[in-house]
Amino acid sequence: MPLVRISVNEEVAGERRKQLAGAVYDAMLATIGIPEGDRFVILTAHNGGELIADPHFMGVERTSEFVTVQITLRRGRSTEKKQALYREIVRLFEQRASIAPDNVMIVLTENDLDDWSFGGGLAQYVLNPPAGARKAGD
Amino acid sequence: MPLVRISVNEEVAGERRKQLAGAVYDAMLATIGIPEGDRFVILTAHNGGELIADPHFMGVERTSEFVTVQITLRRGRSTEKKQALYREIVRLFEQRASIAPDNVMIVLTENDLDDWSFGGGLAQYVLNPPAGARKAGD
Amino acid sequence: MPLVRISVNEEVAGERRKQLAGAVYDAMLATIGIPEGDRFVILTAHNGGELIADPHFMGVERTSEFVTVQITLRRGRSTEKKQALYREIVRLFEQRASIAPDNVMIVLTENDLDDWSFGGGLAQYVLNPPAGARKAGD
Repeated sequence: MPLVRISVNEEVAGERRKQLAGAVYDAMLATIGIPEGDRFVILTAHNGGELIADPHFMGVERTSEFVTVQITLRRGRSTEKKQALYREIVRLFEQRASIAPDNVMIVLTENDLDDWSFGGGLAQYVLNPPAGARKAGD
Repeated sequence: MPLVRISVNEEVAGERRKQLAGAVYDAMLATIGIPEGDRFVILTAHNGGELIADPHFMGVERTSEFVTVQITLRRGRSTEKKQALYREIVRLFEQRASIAPDNVMIVLTENDLDDWSFGGGLAQYVLNPPAGARKAGD
Repeated sequence: MPLVRISVNEEVAGERRKQLAGAVYDAMLATIGIPEGDRFVILTAHNGGELIADPHFMGVERTSEFVTVQITLRRGRSTEKKQALYREIVRLFEQRASIAPDNVMIVLTENDLDDWSFGGGLAQYVLNPPAGARKAGD
């Protein structure tokens, strides 16, 4: 279910850029319990003037290889799972795309089960709630 | 009020692509009670490598004509209205742009009345709440 | 912490476009109490057919210089602070980029402290909550 938006400087190109979507998917599989195949990613490459990050905020060292990962997902993951997700995304970005951990900003936005349609005009999570999910309002 | 972001493969081009924004607007008018004229859409065309969807997740058959529709809207629509919205978006996409229903992913994110400024630096929904709206915290 | 997405027509070009990111950052500093350096902005220029706004909705007069500013930020700012933010963004857009106030739509989406990683795979706001912040669930 997560819908992932990745923004990256166009100078991170070719095979390095291609690795990013799969890395986020694999990190979500490993840490927050998404099912196999739940892979939906929108990637946008920007020129440097359009992807702006402070070089030092929060004691982090950022370069032109800064990447943002914004994930919309259903409500209910624990803080511990989110922390594991952050660690695994930066680990895989570094391993597969040589992106320095300091260059990765991750932002989550949570919504509810009835906020998702995966195709066919159906609200699949209303019809078949995922195991362990909280309903809106719980 | 809804702000709509549509992402589509650049191969869905010309008149077909142009139909998408109006179809989402008309579907919102018909199903979730937005007022006439509440039409704000950002459309982005991506090359295939940048708009990534699993071809089969949730028992749906997706192709390169996959489209995502991400809608930010104020809190308070019922599950039934959201379900009607999903059905109507896919119906109109198929009718007007020949997009197969399975190729349409829709994701909603809700916020509150004071999260909107429609122009002029005003928070119009704070000054004049829409009929039937819940305030933040209700 | 806010992550800012600005969408603008490509006809707002050059120096005018460059002013937008800094204007939103300065407005957030002045009105909602972000710390110095908390500057993360993604700007996308669209052709006219892809950035669609009703020309008159809510009694506002919009032109092809319409701009959307979508800000993801942690929960907890008062309605009054949000209103001050809207006023200051449009003031600075007009002063620095000659964007008419009516052409500026602003949309906020709130999330929680554990939804942010600023780099290094850490959840910095979990480890060191900002002064005055509400925790998720408060």
